[in-house]
Amino acid sequence: QMPRGNLETVHHRALVLAQLRVWLDNLKFRQAFECMRKLRINLNLIYDHNPKVFLDNTKMLITQLNTINHINLFLTELKEEDTTSSMYPRPEGSPIGLQLVSGQKKVDVVCDALRSMMESMDPNKFCLSILTSHVKKTVPELEIALQKVHELRENPPQVPGAVTAEEALKYLLFLVNVNDLYEHSLGTYDFDLVLMVAEKSQKDPKEYLPFLNMLKSLEPNYQRYTIDKHLKRYRKALLHLSQCGPEHFPEALQLVKEQKLYSEALKLYVADAAQYKALSCAYGEHLVEQQQAEQAGLLLWRCGETARALQAFASSSSWRNAICVAQQIPLPSDQLALLARDLAEKLTEQRRYSEAALLLDQYAKDCEEAILALITGAVWEEALRLIYMHNRQDITETNLKPALLEAASTQSFFLETQAATFTRHRTRLAVVREQKEKARLDMLDEDGPDLPDAELYSEASSVMTGSKYSHSNSRISSRSSKNRRKAERKKLSLKEGNPLEDKALMHALGEIITTVDKMREEVHSLLKALVLFQFDKQAEKLQLSYDQALQMMEAAVPEVWPDNLCNNQATLTGPNSTANSIMASFQQQQQQRPVASQPDVEFPMAPKMRNGVKWKLTLF
Amino acid sequence: QMPRGNLETVHHRALVLAQLRVWLDNLKFRQAFECMRKLRINLNLIYDHNPKVFLDNTKMLITQLNTINHINLFLTELKEEDTTSSMYPRPEGSPIGLQLVSGQKKVDVVCDALRSMMESMDPNKFCLSILTSHVKKTVPELEIALQKVHELRENPPQVPGAVTAEEALKYLLFLVNVNDLYEHSLGTYDFDLVLMVAEKSQKDPKEYLPFLNMLKSLEPNYQRYTIDKHLKRYRKALLHLSQCGPEHFPEALQLVKEQKLYSEALKLYVADAAQYKALSCAYGEHLVEQQQAEQAGLLLWRCGETARALQAFASSSSWRNAICVAQQIPLPSDQLALLARDLAEKLTEQRRYSEAALLLDQYAKDCEEAILALITGAVWEEALRLIYMHNRQDITETNLKPALLEAASTQSFFLETQAATFTRHRTRLAVVREQKEKARLDMLDEDGPDLPDAELYSEASSVMTGSKYSHSNSRISSRSSKNRRKAERKKLSLKEGNPLEDKALMHALGEIITTVDKMREEVHSLLKALVLFQFDKQAEKLQLSYDQALQMMEAAVPEVWPDNLCNNQATLTGPNSTANSIMASFQQQQQQRPVASQPDVEFPMAPKMRNGVKWKLTLF
Repeated sequence: QMPRGNLETVHHRALVLAQLRVWLDNLKFRQAFECMRKLRINLNLIYDHNPKVFLDNTKMLITQLNTINHINLFLTELKEEDTTSSMYPRPEGSPIGLQLVSGQKKVDVVCDALRSMMESMDPNKFCLSILTSHVKKTVPELEIALQKVHELRENPPQVPGAVTAEEALKYLLFLVNVNDLYEHSLGTYDFDLVLMVAEKSQKDPKEYLPFLNMLKSLEPNYQRYTIDKHLKRYRKALLHLSQCGPEHFPEALQLVKEQKLYSEALKLYVADAAQYKALSCAYGEHLVEQQQAEQAGLLLWRCGETARALQAFASSSSWRNAICVAQQIPLPSDQLALLARDLAEKLTEQRRYSEAALLLDQYAKDCEEAILALITGAVWEEALRLIYMHNRQDITETNLKPALLEAASTQSFFLETQAATFTRHRTRLAVVREQKEKARLDMLDEDGPDLPDAELYSEASSVMTGSKYSHSNSRISSRSSKNRRKAERKKLSLKEGNPLEDKALMHALGEIITTVDKMREEVHSLLKALVLFQFDKQAEKLQLSYDQALQMMEAAVPEVWPDNLCNNQATLTGPNSTANSIMASFQQQQQQRPVASQPDVEFPMAPKMRNGVKWKLTLF
Repeated sequence: QMPRGNLETVHHRALVLAQLRVWLDNLKFRQAFECMRKLRINLNLIYDHNPKVFLDNTKMLITQLNTINHINLFLTELKEEDTTSSMYPRPEGSPIGLQLVSGQKKVDVVCDALRSMMESMDPNKFCLSILTSHVKKTVPELEIALQKVHELRENPPQVPGAVTAEEALKYLLFLVNVNDLYEHSLGTYDFDLVLMVAEKSQKDPKEYLPFLNMLKSLEPNYQRYTIDKHLKRYRKALLHLSQCGPEHFPEALQLVKEQKLYSEALKLYVADAAQYKALSCAYGEHLVEQQQAEQAGLLLWRCGETARALQAFASSSSWRNAICVAQQIPLPSDQLALLARDLAEKLTEQRRYSEAALLLDQYAKDCEEAILALITGAVWEEALRLIYMHNRQDITETNLKPALLEAASTQSFFLETQAATFTRHRTRLAVVREQKEKARLDMLDEDGPDLPDAELYSEASSVMTGSKYSHSNSRISSRSSKNRRKAERKKLSLKEGNPLEDKALMHALGEIITTVDKMREEVHSLLKALVLFQFDKQAEKLQLSYDQALQMMEAAVPEVWPDNLCNNQATLTGPNSTANSIMASFQQQQQQRPVASQPDVEFPMAPKMRNGVKWKLTLF
């Protein structure tokens, strides 16, 4: 928008801006405004130059701009952008602008500030500018503007030269799309206002008059509902419809379902009303569709829809609630037992053996199945408790003891394979790191000694080997961080030669440690059960394997996750360091950090071992 | 041990070593040995120079050294130290020595290699050197050496010049302390040998003869036990004593108790023997003293000591086992109920409300107490289950609902205070970091522009303010890492002005996040219970507070734990960086890292939030 072909006008802008800043600093808004208008400088600068001064001197500004047209011009040109950081950078060293409270918009702040000043100075004189300030807000306040026009018509101000309602409306129509204005006038539920806008709008009266007359004939709440619905303001529509009496409830329910206004609707009806129940049922259906069957169950239960609640709870494995509802109904005991069995089966599939056993024991009255579930789930102590409770010591011999022995050998075997994989990965990691280090040193040798800081090229190897992966980096960076992490994990392949193989190995090693560390509780309870049944040899073997595995992994942590991958930076500098010592220790760190490559994938963190969880027996 | 006052002898050692290396490389052991002896060069070098060559040529070495005296001299001078890395460093570029399999000792390797060669060459000729090789091992094999002497006496070799038993024994006594030798001869249980050593030992026969005669009179196993005990070899003593028959069991039990050989002892007796039971009881007592009452209970239970097992289980809150034992005894039902109540009380004290409720419900048959325990523990669903199971809906009104409302307001209040503390710490952290940064910049200004790398002095502020703490650093570094971490935590005081205040604040902020994050499950179950009883308003409020708290904390993580405290180092270098760009980005990192100080305390890590744990209801 610069005048073209005239280099002089382009070139003297720096001088112009300097002059403008002087004027603005001296509150010479008039001069500044005139000059900016002439040279097509963005008027936002009047505010952006020094927001605080601007806001403190709105009266001065309005007085100096003087005419409605000037003020409107300024208001309509307002943009959220800060021109001092885009088009007209501040000279260096000048103070920085006012920070807005987070969430506040510049345009809204300026509009509100100017409007309140104009209203206090002369609401009649500045009428059109006041309307502009409403319309220009981030979310235009059309209803308020319309209300003011309506006010002008109802009580025309008795001052000479005051704006008439006609003029004001014309002006509004110039600022805002006529259909928007018509819709918003409807939203005020004020038919006078609607008619006024409609008349000015060049709309066909045959079009709008029948609609308005139909609306006028309606009961007030239903009228407002109809308008709200027409304007797609469904929450308001529901509110008004809910006040129309029970005969309109089916319509309300329909609206709630269509617009998914369930939780809003529940707040509008009394909890023990029939409508509340109907809404709860509808909401329940919706929640079930949304995979929220448990919450559906709660709503259905509390409004007395026990059968449907039971179904919802059962389908979401919310077994305690399901059983409670069943007992409230009350289900006959054979059906309750059947329900308990069904629930137990689902829980077993989810490996929730203790809960399954409780159902089988207490509701299906089948202690044998309960005990077997506990044995399957390796819940040894609880299995034994039920065995003694129901005097079924025979199961100890037929099932418990064999299961204990099998568990001991399974666990021992599992620990062996985990330890073997761990050692394999660890050895390979050392090889990969050495290769990377070697590749780095080779690079240095090639570049020779004329490059004294060549040692910093520690990324060299990764760049060399990483070429087939590197093209994807830009694509990844634009993804969400969640997707990025997923993509990263995919790149962490253990395939030999993958440039991220070192990180993949660290990741795999961390996973093994976490898996093995998680076994503490399980191993502890198995060890106790083995000892109880005199399987000391098996217990001792398992304890030894587990102890060795844990010790081996703990000892490997400092090697696999060396400190200097992360924390050792702090030693780099200090009050006694010189530029040389810093560079030296910095280079040393580069060398100690053998895998500092591929900055787009983070280093897998060292897993935390739960050494506080005591699992070992002192018996052996 | 260098000859003093003669610089020439000192100076030509480099030449001597070079010559020695040539001789050793050419397997001229004789020349090397003679020269080393003359010039007092450590004989270990013969092996250390090239272990592989040495071990491959032991026959050559023995042949060249030729005399027993020379071989003995070499053997007695063996040390675990590697002389090529201490006294006689290898010339650069020479191959590195043989790596021993981890755990293997050099001295043992050399002794075993030479001995096996000498035994294959001429065991009679090298007899004394063979003895030396036994005695010189890391753990001297005195019994074997003694056995060989004994063999000489029993079957004197029919070769001219063969060593006699007398001579061999004399030689052994020259190498080893006479009392050690006497004790070890006893340890062979071979009285001939003992007498032989005793006679040569200048011991008073009046002293040892009665003891030996007494021993001779004993039954063989008891004899060995007595010797083992005399030699403080208690495990062996127990083994032999256990073979002496049941009449010696009290003595064995005494030994087990004195030497705490419980687990060894259990392996020596059959599980259903009376002795096994007695040992188990003794072990049980010991374990109870060691705060291992549960394990004691297991031992006592399995050997049939039910009453004592019950006591052990009860005292360790191992309630399932306690109940099983009680039912096995079987305890009369009123006593069982009493036991259940006692156990439940202990569990309640440990906040294990669900378990307490199970005991009260199923064994004390007091469902009301059980339900109240669950309500106290905020185990809402389970409380409701028991309410319906026992048809006690009255408790819903009297206890459950009021407890739910109270929990909702308690949790909301707790969240408010946590959020407030969090915000306070966070604001203070920003202030502290700014102050540190300012102090750093002030330092730079003082030093002026003649120090272009002054920006690296980021530690300045900490040094200035940290003086009263810094003297303790050296003390801390000498402690164990566990103690050190404890001491670190102590230093992490939130007191304003503490030089570690920033880290203390990060630590405190992390703790709050962890605490609040842990509430997910509890809040979720409370929300569901509130909804069930139509307390929608309270549920909505709690959900909102918790959601806001979590979001606020999650949003604060990048600010409180900025990435560049740890991971961002990787961007420092790369194939396109120059020395200047690296220095620049490096300095920038220093500036971005406002708290990189006090290298002796690690940066508290950012806590992990369990965003995978869904807690929110979709109802609101």
